[in-house]
Amino acid sequence: MSLREKLHEIIFEADTPAGKAFDIILLLAILLSVGVVMLESVDDINKRYEHAFDVLEWSFTILFTLEYILRILIINKPLKYIFSFYGIIDLLSILPTYMGIFVKGTSSLMIVRSLRLLRVFRVLKLTRYLGEGNQLWVALLQSRRKILVFLFVVLTASMIMGTLMFMIEGPEHGFTSIPRSIYWAIVTLTTVGYGDISPSTAIGQFFASVIMVLGYGIIAVPTGIVTAELVNNPPTSNTQVCRNCAEDQHVDGATYCHSCGHLL
Amino acid sequence: MSLREKLHEIIFEADTPAGKAFDIILLLAILLSVGVVMLESVDDINKRYEHAFDVLEWSFTILFTLEYILRILIINKPLKYIFSFYGIIDLLSILPTYMGIFVKGTSSLMIVRSLRLLRVFRVLKLTRYLGEGNQLWVALLQSRRKILVFLFVVLTASMIMGTLMFMIEGPEHGFTSIPRSIYWAIVTLTTVGYGDISPSTAIGQFFASVIMVLGYGIIAVPTGIVTAELVNNPPTSNTQVCRNCAEDQHVDGATYCHSCGHLL
Amino acid sequence: MSLREKLHEIIFEADTPAGKAFDIILLLAILLSVGVVMLESVDDINKRYEHAFDVLEWSFTILFTLEYILRILIINKPLKYIFSFYGIIDLLSILPTYMGIFVKGTSSLMIVRSLRLLRVFRVLKLTRYLGEGNQLWVALLQSRRKILVFLFVVLTASMIMGTLMFMIEGPEHGFTSIPRSIYWAIVTLTTVGYGDISPSTAIGQFFASVIMVLGYGIIAVPTGIVTAELVNNPPTSNTQVCRNCAEDQHVDGATYCHSCGHLL
Amino acid sequence: MSLREKLHEIIFEADTPAGKAFDIILLLAILLSVGVVMLESVDDINKRYEHAFDVLEWSFTILFTLEYILRILIINKPLKYIFSFYGIIDLLSILPTYMGIFVKGTSSLMIVRSLRLLRVFRVLKLTRYLGEGNQLWVALLQSRRKILVFLFVVLTASMIMGTLMFMIEGPEHGFTSIPRSIYWAIVTLTTVGYGDISPSTAIGQFFASVIMVLGYGIIAVPTGIVTAELVNNPPTSNTQVCRNCAEDQHVDGATYCHSCGHLL
Repeated sequence: MSLREKLHEIIFEADTPAGKAFDIILLLAILLSVGVVMLESVDDINKRYEHAFDVLEWSFTILFTLEYILRILIINKPLKYIFSFYGIIDLLSILPTYMGIFVKGTSSLMIVRSLRLLRVFRVLKLTRYLGEGNQLWVALLQSRRKILVFLFVVLTASMIMGTLMFMIEGPEHGFTSIPRSIYWAIVTLTTVGYGDISPSTAIGQFFASVIMVLGYGIIAVPTGIVTAELVNNPPTSNTQVCRNCAEDQHVDGATYCHSCGHLL
Repeated sequence: MSLREKLHEIIFEADTPAGKAFDIILLLAILLSVGVVMLESVDDINKRYEHAFDVLEWSFTILFTLEYILRILIINKPLKYIFSFYGIIDLLSILPTYMGIFVKGTSSLMIVRSLRLLRVFRVLKLTRYLGEGNQLWVALLQSRRKILVFLFVVLTASMIMGTLMFMIEGPEHGFTSIPRSIYWAIVTLTTVGYGDISPSTAIGQFFASVIMVLGYGIIAVPTGIVTAELVNNPPTSNTQVCRNCAEDQHVDGATYCHSCGHLL
Repeated sequence: MSLREKLHEIIFEADTPAGKAFDIILLLAILLSVGVVMLESVDDINKRYEHAFDVLEWSFTILFTLEYILRILIINKPLKYIFSFYGIIDLLSILPTYMGIFVKGTSSLMIVRSLRLLRVFRVLKLTRYLGEGNQLWVALLQSRRKILVFLFVVLTASMIMGTLMFMIEGPEHGFTSIPRSIYWAIVTLTTVGYGDISPSTAIGQFFASVIMVLGYGIIAVPTGIVTAELVNNPPTSNTQVCRNCAEDQHVDGATYCHSCGHLL
Repeated sequence: MSLREKLHEIIFEADTPAGKAFDIILLLAILLSVGVVMLESVDDINKRYEHAFDVLEWSFTILFTLEYILRILIINKPLKYIFSFYGIIDLLSILPTYMGIFVKGTSSLMIVRSLRLLRVFRVLKLTRYLGEGNQLWVALLQSRRKILVFLFVVLTASMIMGTLMFMIEGPEHGFTSIPRSIYWAIVTLTTVGYGDISPSTAIGQFFASVIMVLGYGIIAVPTGIVTAELVNNPPTSNTQVCRNCAEDQHVDGATYCHSCGHLL
């Protein structure tokens, strides 16, 4: 196995001890860097540890830059990685820090600094490092049409309910426009119930009760559909990643990549 | 195939390319027209784009009028369509705009304009255009008796709990009448929890806790019943619509309409 | 079949046309009488229709009294019915109106009148009249041990979480005592979330987040257990009631009552 | 069977009448002692019954001390028990009362007294005494990886959503920092919805609606995964505890402890 193949195994897969160690270190670095971005947003903490945060941020930026360059060098089809979802996120999470050097003026700097918050999307990468995460992802993909139909039903119901409540309660009771009434309907149907808008007339409360009870009864069905699908077609998971095209949705026991035909 | 049969396939079914294209255009038109009605309800936006909204509304009204007339001409039993749920909605979504021409006086015009909000029910038509929507609908029909029993149990429990809380907390703590206390019980049992009414005495909070925990435990059962039914009797879906009577609940592989005997 | 046996079939069972008609009339009468009790609690409505409510109440009381006497006369073991749950409810729903005649003094009358609210428990009888209700009831009985364990886990978790939050947030942030903190924990764990008490310190919000996420993840398990039980052992329902002892939990196809051996 | 073996059966197992009686008495004592700690936290009640609470507390402390000593004497490997989770809880629930004698000064006494609140963890022991509790525990252990992935997904989603909402709504609408925005995202995604922080701009409400609906649709999947696992691999329960090492996760029909090889 060449050095490049070895590096591919370490960086892209999680089957060997070296690959696992690399993943765990990266996982910790991502969590820490996201933690720093978060703590920076708390005024009190930012003022006290501003210098330490600067040092930490440059360390993480350099580490992630090295990882980004390595990934491009090792993979066979670098362009596919660069323009993939994770490739763009990897780039977006290191660019703002470098941009901060060249940008002058407080307001421009503020905008560039706020761009660093996009780094939070890097935590999505962690999903890959959990074996069962793949299974969850496959289950989601498998049920995606049913979930879409469910979302569509919830949205349609919210639209109709929101419009009716706008007619019943009206602007004088907080339902100032149809979009705002639809927001209320979604808050109610998903059982979140902030209480920032709530019906105050007797007829509005009656109608809201009907919405809640009906929604509650109907909602058991999509849960049942997804569960029934999973009981009858249990999803499978696999952590192998093709070293040619980075495809990672292989079935168990696959010898060749189903996307490009390369040996796994 | 005659022109009429071809038009039937385009307008009423979604199996051919032309039928799919028609459905997608209609889908977009419905969503846009509903979007216009919604944005009109926001005061700021309505004042600025009043003229553009007028033009858009007339365009949609003429488009939907053409569709309505076509549907009546093509189907074999037009009266069945006209008095069906979708037929009435189709008519209600175009009538108010025409009525606006003949009606004089600001207050009358306001009432007619508000009738246009009923157009929101047109989005229900979209349910038909999702293949899996049928499956969800069949599952709902299949579980309707169980959902009804569940709704009945929730309502009965809410009645008893609301009455008891009215006796415990009383009008001085926001539980001003039994119907209002039942509204509170439904808000609590469905876990919406607005917080507009909440128990403030120690005994009321204890009783509310019992309600929440019990309700929470019992609610797992109907979800389980619906899921168990779906696991044992998975629902099937079919997008064919009879060109004679517009019946659309056919089983897979059906050759004749089970409602009127016409060839599918 | 003797008159008594016929009456038994009409009053206690729902298999014959006469039995169904009796059940529907009783169902409507119960719903109406509960509706009257509810509307009486709304001050505005009660003042306007006080006399009409009095007439309605006496009508319902006399009707329910007749039904109560008939039930005692027809059943073979009247004492078992009188001291059963439904027997006591039937009595409690007619007694207060009669007591109102003999009681003098406004305050005593108020107490007696409020007792009429217990009539709301009569709606529980409706559960019997829904065929699938039995199935739900059997499923609940079948899963009762698991639901109890679930309730126990929720209560234990609420106790521990409430106590910890009392230590973290303390009386100055609304967590004035451990019972009140437990009330908050239950409101949070059941996802009701009134917002009358909510954490305001950073550490309290962090801990509350942990509670919500953990609770949310763990709660999927009991739902799964109940569903798995129902998938593997689907419950059966049966509407036959023994004319000797009023036992109503018979299996399908049973010829003799499993409780007293009487022919069904 | 020696006295020691008999005592082991009484104290550690629940299969014999004596063992059951011991468990029930201990269960009641734990619930009562926790109840006393809770009532002490209510100012009004504590002032009135201070003396009675002192007497009760000493009684419970002495009872639990005896139980603790007996457990150490009877078990073959006492150190394993002492440093187990339940061993530490048992010690922590009796120590503070004894420490109260030696500690002088009001503020030190306050700290020691507040330590008694840790006794609430003893209620966790009750889980062992419910037969089905084991099954729930096994099911939880069996699904622990899936629940972890689910928790991870919820946390990742909350992080990203919280950061986006911090950028959209900003500090002027209550989203004062990223951690606080994440707290809001968790409150929303778990459908608790206190309403202490809620979006007030149009774009924030739109984005919050997307979060709620998406979260609602995706959440059906983990519930389905856990249920599917439980349907295909129903968990088993067993109440036997090894008298050598206190291991209590034995499969049904096991003759030797799978942890130390000792005869059960």
